[in-house]
Amino acid sequence: MKVVLPDKSEIEVRDNATVKEVAEAIGRGLAKQAVAGVINGKMVDIYYTVNDRDEVKIITERDKEGLEILRHSTAHLMAQAVKRLFKNVKVTIGPTIEDGFYYDFDIDTPFTEDDLEKIEAEMAKIAKENLPIRRKELTKEEAIELFKKLGEDYKVEIINELDEDIVSVYEQGEFVDLCRGPHLESTGKIKYFKLLSVAGAYWRGDENNKMLQRIYGTAWFKKSELDEYLHRLEEAKKRDHRKLGKELELFSTFDEIGAGLICWFPKGARIRSVIESFWKEEHYKNGYEMLYTPHIGKSTLWETSGHLAFYQENMYSPMDIEGNNYYIKPMNCPFHIMVYKSKVRSYRDLPLRWAELGTVYRYERSGVLHGLLRVRGFTQDDAHIICTQEQIVDEIKEVLRFSLKMWENFGFDQIKGYIATRPEKSVGDDEMWEKATHSLENAIKDSGIEFELDEGGGAFYGPKIDLKIKDAIGREWQMTTIQFDFNLPERFDMTYVDKDGKEKRPFMVHRALLGSLERFFGVLIEHYAGAFPFWLAPIQIRIINVSDAQYDYCKDIENRLRKEGFRVEFDSRNEKIGYKIREAQLQKIPHMIIIGNNEVEAEKVSVRLRTGENKNNLDFFEYISVIKELDSSRSKNLWR
Amino acid sequence: MKVVLPDKSEIEVRDNATVKEVAEAIGRGLAKQAVAGVINGKMVDIYYTVNDRDEVKIITERDKEGLEILRHSTAHLMAQAVKRLFKNVKVTIGPTIEDGFYYDFDIDTPFTEDDLEKIEAEMAKIAKENLPIRRKELTKEEAIELFKKLGEDYKVEIINELDEDIVSVYEQGEFVDLCRGPHLESTGKIKYFKLLSVAGAYWRGDENNKMLQRIYGTAWFKKSELDEYLHRLEEAKKRDHRKLGKELELFSTFDEIGAGLICWFPKGARIRSVIESFWKEEHYKNGYEMLYTPHIGKSTLWETSGHLAFYQENMYSPMDIEGNNYYIKPMNCPFHIMVYKSKVRSYRDLPLRWAELGTVYRYERSGVLHGLLRVRGFTQDDAHIICTQEQIVDEIKEVLRFSLKMWENFGFDQIKGYIATRPEKSVGDDEMWEKATHSLENAIKDSGIEFELDEGGGAFYGPKIDLKIKDAIGREWQMTTIQFDFNLPERFDMTYVDKDGKEKRPFMVHRALLGSLERFFGVLIEHYAGAFPFWLAPIQIRIINVSDAQYDYCKDIENRLRKEGFRVEFDSRNEKIGYKIREAQLQKIPHMIIIGNNEVEAEKVSVRLRTGENKNNLDFFEYISVIKELDSSRSKNLWR
Repeated sequence: MKVVLPDKSEIEVRDNATVKEVAEAIGRGLAKQAVAGVINGKMVDIYYTVNDRDEVKIITERDKEGLEILRHSTAHLMAQAVKRLFKNVKVTIGPTIEDGFYYDFDIDTPFTEDDLEKIEAEMAKIAKENLPIRRKELTKEEAIELFKKLGEDYKVEIINELDEDIVSVYEQGEFVDLCRGPHLESTGKIKYFKLLSVAGAYWRGDENNKMLQRIYGTAWFKKSELDEYLHRLEEAKKRDHRKLGKELELFSTFDEIGAGLICWFPKGARIRSVIESFWKEEHYKNGYEMLYTPHIGKSTLWETSGHLAFYQENMYSPMDIEGNNYYIKPMNCPFHIMVYKSKVRSYRDLPLRWAELGTVYRYERSGVLHGLLRVRGFTQDDAHIICTQEQIVDEIKEVLRFSLKMWENFGFDQIKGYIATRPEKSVGDDEMWEKATHSLENAIKDSGIEFELDEGGGAFYGPKIDLKIKDAIGREWQMTTIQFDFNLPERFDMTYVDKDGKEKRPFMVHRALLGSLERFFGVLIEHYAGAFPFWLAPIQIRIINVSDAQYDYCKDIENRLRKEGFRVEFDSRNEKIGYKIREAQLQKIPHMIIIGNNEVEAEKVSVRLRTGENKNNLDFFEYISVIKELDSSRSKNLWR
Repeated sequence: MKVVLPDKSEIEVRDNATVKEVAEAIGRGLAKQAVAGVINGKMVDIYYTVNDRDEVKIITERDKEGLEILRHSTAHLMAQAVKRLFKNVKVTIGPTIEDGFYYDFDIDTPFTEDDLEKIEAEMAKIAKENLPIRRKELTKEEAIELFKKLGEDYKVEIINELDEDIVSVYEQGEFVDLCRGPHLESTGKIKYFKLLSVAGAYWRGDENNKMLQRIYGTAWFKKSELDEYLHRLEEAKKRDHRKLGKELELFSTFDEIGAGLICWFPKGARIRSVIESFWKEEHYKNGYEMLYTPHIGKSTLWETSGHLAFYQENMYSPMDIEGNNYYIKPMNCPFHIMVYKSKVRSYRDLPLRWAELGTVYRYERSGVLHGLLRVRGFTQDDAHIICTQEQIVDEIKEVLRFSLKMWENFGFDQIKGYIATRPEKSVGDDEMWEKATHSLENAIKDSGIEFELDEGGGAFYGPKIDLKIKDAIGREWQMTTIQFDFNLPERFDMTYVDKDGKEKRPFMVHRALLGSLERFFGVLIEHYAGAFPFWLAPIQIRIINVSDAQYDYCKDIENRLRKEGFRVEFDSRNEKIGYKIREAQLQKIPHMIIIGNNEVEAEKVSVRLRTGENKNNLDFFEYISVIKELDSSRSKNLWR
């Protein structure tokens, strides 16, 4: 018989051949890496038999789906090990997630670190047993009976809610689990895994339900991949902005003030000041104007904008002022629109590009708050572009160009775009959507940014481009947003008078380049692991004297550097030089100027970079010229 | 008989001499200017008789008290005129205020502009009648009977509430008014006055009482003084920041957003950006660090700080977040204190100087809101200095020096200080108050700032210095505050570890140099009448071409100026040059570059200053060097 391959070619296989045999017919290399198959569009286990003329695709270890199957099978393996080791434990669900999987267990005592080790050992044992993993299809009633007998109440609950008449289970040795599959063919295929952590989690995420114990784990096809991943995790832990934020005294939150509300400490604020100044300067240079608007506004404003009708759950409760309800703002847009509407606008006034570092407050459940990355109060680097239809493509192109330039300056050069198009439920006529979406595509193609289309993924009020940036350890962060809005111009009846004297509705685009200063700062800390480039470092230079004999010379250098606008400290403490260098190193200060008698006599400076590199006996003016260049070029390097 | 003069010298006068006769005995010049007298510390009318050995001081037209007597008499004169002209009007009270007086009348129809003219004419008539103004002392009962007979119910109400048995009234012709005096000796002495405006005012300022009609007026001893004052009023009207704010598109408020909540328009925001950058730079240069803190905080924070107990009426109602009350901040201090308390502080860490452009929200009745000067949301240029007792004098001196420098940069050089000392009800021990007050006096003397003591005028939590600045038309504005706080360090249990290893309480000083950016901007607009100096102007330069022939040349100049960081516009409209200049003039743009064919051929620029002065055929680089200097020196002039 013959089967059809993805490239439409055909290959001859024996009658009743399995997916694996098809893979072998294609090539031994492929067969070795085969994990599962897709027969006529349906994913199946590797031991499935194919029919004549079936379209067959092989899923291998290198496919995303292959990894997911491995991880899903590892979740089952873990559940089996847990069932072997612990009495009275009930299984619930165990899905895959990015880079791994978890499984939630109903057990009275939470798992300990020791438990994780034991479970891992048991998993290795079961893997060695190389139990075949086999699919069985049962009627709903049979399945319910099976899991009732096993005492697995959660599975019974899930099956009861299923719409299908036939359900599938997977068996491996004594263990059976409700599952759609597919799975690896035997437990022996699972080799490189690691259990990572334990957490409490409510059944179905509902806090009224029982608290379950969740174990997180990861699994990979190659040892090197597992090692790399664990290394990346280690790296990420070291770079954790919450840890570094504390160590480097950058920011904090306080219970007394409230969760998710950030206080920027002097050193963090210093960096924020540098960022804000640069941001403002660049915006002015690039044809933007600034606005400053209040943090609170009357309910009438939010009624007109529609926020009270559609966004209230993310807003805080109102404040009463002389009988009126005022809300703290979750967005800046209505304020910018009021400024727009303060006078009649002509086509000659457009495009308007109005930016604001606007601090907004949104409700997030305390459970999802996370350092600087998910907060309740944050300062958006917001702007609204209001323009005519004719201007829109150029405007979007310009925003993308500007965004890339911004990211480059902050040391990010791997950017990916996502265009979200019209969803089913949406406002605005077809022509507008088409024009807008077209302008986004047109602009992003022009920019050279790699991008994906997210069909139907736009907000109800307009299409958008999101940009994700990749950090130093390969993680992607969604930062820049360029979002059309067909809703607010309508709701606020925004108009301009066109050349022909007619009132027309302008286009309005929201955009944030960095996103929010808080989240951006979190990503920045992790990207640089707290070792900020020279132009961003809160303290750029620390002067260290070998002994008191060099005090005056150091003081003089400090004053001269400060006068030139550099952020400099002089560590004149009566401590050993090694100790002082180590401390500066821990604080990740880019440059240390080390002054001994030689330097004083020769009227030179010796500079030790954070990297450990030394630049000895430099002329002071030579040094100044180097750091001026580092500052103004916003260099990622510590020397020219 | 003999009387004693203020310099302790004695002078012989006839028995039963009046104050006026004493003045004549001293000198004819003095007698001519005499308005009233002070006998043994009690102010009396000029026709009072003195006794042997009385200490007598003459109050003249040049004394502050003399002016107040004139204005008080003018208020009576106005009331008499109103009583003559209107039926069924009742008088209430008529005090003096800065630069004038008012009188509140109970009358059914509000006064019109025409009415004011009529009243003024009637006042002039009564003045010409030169009626003697004479004091009478009555028992309380007699006085009540008198005013009952006159139908003056408000006067009866006032007398009933008086503690004294004997009350004084002043008679002039048919008019009599309850009054402590003293007054001028006759209506003929009142010559130079003007009624200014009418407003509604509740009896005793209580909105549950009847609405009265208030007439404001002014009076002076010399025609030139009256004219000058009226001119100053005219000037102030022209400079009104609300009027200029609209004309120059600097800022606005919106009913939809709420009263007292300022939206800064692009041009206002541009100025604010310049101010903020300068402010931050100066603060960093002068040893401050910045903080950024949230706009909301949990009730526990405000309970600890005492704001909920003592300041709640100025705070907005709470927002509920997951069962906790959060308040929008009326002050930044508790947040800064939390940062202080985030770790153990040593004497080596002090002084700390933490600044924040912190936006706060306070309740003000809608009736008192006024443009940028009295608002509900404002950004303080706040800082907290936390230091040891030993450091405090130097710190205060430094703040004063810094403040003067700041004011100088913004073009204000007339500064006056007011030190407010310990009130009866207050916290903190005597030694602290003494040290703190002493440090304030010490510092202000050192600064050379003229100052007054306001004994007992401090807040309950510490003494303070307020600085008032004088603007271009002589008005004083209270701006800078340097305020000790003995309360919050106690409430938050702020400590540092001293050299001796003991925990000690640091000193804490709140200070705001500009006060709030909103109010400061209001004063700045009025001070410069919207014609901002070059470094502050939102648009510094407008390029104007004579005809299209110079378009490219102008465009080139525009780009070069923009590249150098100047705020420049090119008015390339096809309009007459006179028209374009007039428009730039109306927008108070400091420099206009006028380009005709001559300039293009010679590769020069001709510059017209806002003052009308012309600088023709300049080399472009020469011009750049001039404006760079204007910018960096923050010059008040438009040319070097």
